[in-house]
Amino acid sequence: MFFSGVSKLNLPSERFTVIYRVLGNEKEAYEKAKDICLEQTVEFPEELVPSGVIADHIVGRIESFASWDDHSFHVAVSYHVDCAAKELTQLLNVVFGNISIKPGIKVMSLELPDSILCNFKGPRFGTAGLRKLLGVEQRPLLFTALKPMGLTNEELAELAYKFALGGIDIIKDDHGLSNQSFSPFEGRVKLCAAAVDRANKETGYRSIYMPNITAPHHEVLDRARLAKKLGAGGLLIAPGLTGLDAMREVAENDDIGLPIMSHPAFQGSYVLGDSGLSHQVLFGQIPRLAGADGTIYPNFGGRFSFSKEECQAIATASLIPMGHLKSIFPCPAGGMSLQSIPESLKVYGNDVIFLVGGGLFRQGPDIIENSRYFKKLVEEISNNK
Amino acid sequence: MFFSGVSKLNLPSERFTVIYRVLGNEKEAYEKAKDICLEQTVEFPEELVPSGVIADHIVGRIESFASWDDHSFHVAVSYHVDCAAKELTQLLNVVFGNISIKPGIKVMSLELPDSILCNFKGPRFGTAGLRKLLGVEQRPLLFTALKPMGLTNEELAELAYKFALGGIDIIKDDHGLSNQSFSPFEGRVKLCAAAVDRANKETGYRSIYMPNITAPHHEVLDRARLAKKLGAGGLLIAPGLTGLDAMREVAENDDIGLPIMSHPAFQGSYVLGDSGLSHQVLFGQIPRLAGADGTIYPNFGGRFSFSKEECQAIATASLIPMGHLKSIFPCPAGGMSLQSIPESLKVYGNDVIFLVGGGLFRQGPDIIENSRYFKKLVEEISNNK
Repeated sequence: MFFSGVSKLNLPSERFTVIYRVLGNEKEAYEKAKDICLEQTVEFPEELVPSGVIADHIVGRIESFASWDDHSFHVAVSYHVDCAAKELTQLLNVVFGNISIKPGIKVMSLELPDSILCNFKGPRFGTAGLRKLLGVEQRPLLFTALKPMGLTNEELAELAYKFALGGIDIIKDDHGLSNQSFSPFEGRVKLCAAAVDRANKETGYRSIYMPNITAPHHEVLDRARLAKKLGAGGLLIAPGLTGLDAMREVAENDDIGLPIMSHPAFQGSYVLGDSGLSHQVLFGQIPRLAGADGTIYPNFGGRFSFSKEECQAIATASLIPMGHLKSIFPCPAGGMSLQSIPESLKVYGNDVIFLVGGGLFRQGPDIIENSRYFKKLVEEISNNK
Repeated sequence: MFFSGVSKLNLPSERFTVIYRVLGNEKEAYEKAKDICLEQTVEFPEELVPSGVIADHIVGRIESFASWDDHSFHVAVSYHVDCAAKELTQLLNVVFGNISIKPGIKVMSLELPDSILCNFKGPRFGTAGLRKLLGVEQRPLLFTALKPMGLTNEELAELAYKFALGGIDIIKDDHGLSNQSFSPFEGRVKLCAAAVDRANKETGYRSIYMPNITAPHHEVLDRARLAKKLGAGGLLIAPGLTGLDAMREVAENDDIGLPIMSHPAFQGSYVLGDSGLSHQVLFGQIPRLAGADGTIYPNFGGRFSFSKEECQAIATASLIPMGHLKSIFPCPAGGMSLQSIPESLKVYGNDVIFLVGGGLFRQGPDIIENSRYFKKLVEEISNNK
């Protein structure tokens, strides 16, 4: 044996559990399940794993193994909470680090005890807090984006003013707007925040502007602070580009203290196919753990590929109890048209944010009227539910 | 028309190109290609895209479209360099942000002009710099990992000492070691760096210790600085967990100035299947752009799924000219055994780093002897090539 001192370790015994879907016949799937237990922890030949604490506590443990369908199995693997080191990065590493490279393994759900959840503040506002901030008690919230890329900051601000005048609750940068030469971040935020503020004074609404703070590593927090200083009412971030922990850090920063929307850019590959993360984990449980108040994802029936069931699973994971973490808003988007609102409302109920971008322009030549129509439509059908 | 001011923009005309593999018959694939041009830039209904600069320069452009095989097409799409905003995060967003959520689109290669590459310092050491640092002129470099998770820092340091005594060039933390209660980061780095230093004094070799700095957002640079202060000779980071730009920032930081190895944890889903990023883009071009001096990936014939051709493509992308960016080392790993070295050496030649972890323990009971055997084996076969 190479090692002696493992028994010096004295760990508490609490564990967290990951539900995996593993492809293969029973024998293959069980071998994969045993491999997951080693690969995600000791990454060491089974016959050489030291007995004692490492074998008994550090190595993952198969808690259950059952047929999922005729070619895959439902496997619950538990890990010692200390392996996750109270870090989101290391938690994700234990859940899916190395096995992300092995075909036919999908993370279906996370079962995290308070001893893991207590390391995360979670969403600052959540559904109730965001409703209070926007002064909207009951109906679904209205969300749109400033686009297309290539407009000047003045034009984007003029659009923001018109959307707010029309009663859109949340007006965000299109996720492709960062700090381009043709739309510098600081100037854009200054103009758009002022424009929304001016519209609010006229309407009495409480619309907010959410600039995109997806940025190089050290600039994420700087842009968030600058946005707050310049009057932004919230922040948009794409954690697939910045890293999920960047979103968590912005969300947990008390000096910033703004609501945050998570954008799915660069994350799609995790949910497409039989390997990766389930829709509810990637767009529900993880952004909630990482402090998002709303999770943007492509709605069913739009120009993307998610099914109604996959979208419902995201909404459920966003809203059901998750320890002390507040519930967050599902934000179906991706080619949503105003015509699709009634069916979507049936699926999601009122605790949803409808993100309609290009579809709002298609409605007619007057963007203020289109926005008012969007608001009136949602008010009417949500009242008559 | 909603907008007037687009002609105010006056952009230079240089563009970068992304090669996509798009699934479908000719009609379907061409529709997808046109969609990519809109989705990755203006994200706006085609019929409403303002004429002038936005339609002519901002919207992506299909540069070529040709059959790839009987069910997919090779599509070259160019984008204006200004859309990428001189940021790695926004460059990746333009390359694959929203379309990551659309099935059947894979990024096969990036063709980046100097006007993009000039925004990145790239690898600080590269292949030549790392060879000089380690004093190894011609043979492949030897790489191993401190494991299993659950050892005490004292045990890990004892292992590091033995590996260095045996002549291993680079000794890294296993990627599962972060800052756990049973192996706190600072104590581990202090002990392991000192242990390798002690061995070097005995052997005259220049082995280096590379701690894992994969950490929460704001701690990545702190851990890198601390590691440097405590005598680490390099750094290991998993950009799939921290975000790719965190690696770039550490690599470009002159106060840190250590060689960096990129670990593939949590990135596998991008290369498995028909959607995502090719092996050469994810493990070759992107880590090189983000400043890694070596790129770790699972070797063919190991316990993972990559083919020999996919591994060769990674090595090629790591080594061929890429503007001013230095070439970097392919680091095949993932269940490599000493027995697999001869065949791997035939495939990679001498500009490779063999990462053998668990396999080094399997060789025999004496880890120093096993390390010496590893070194002798590589020296002999690389000389007799």
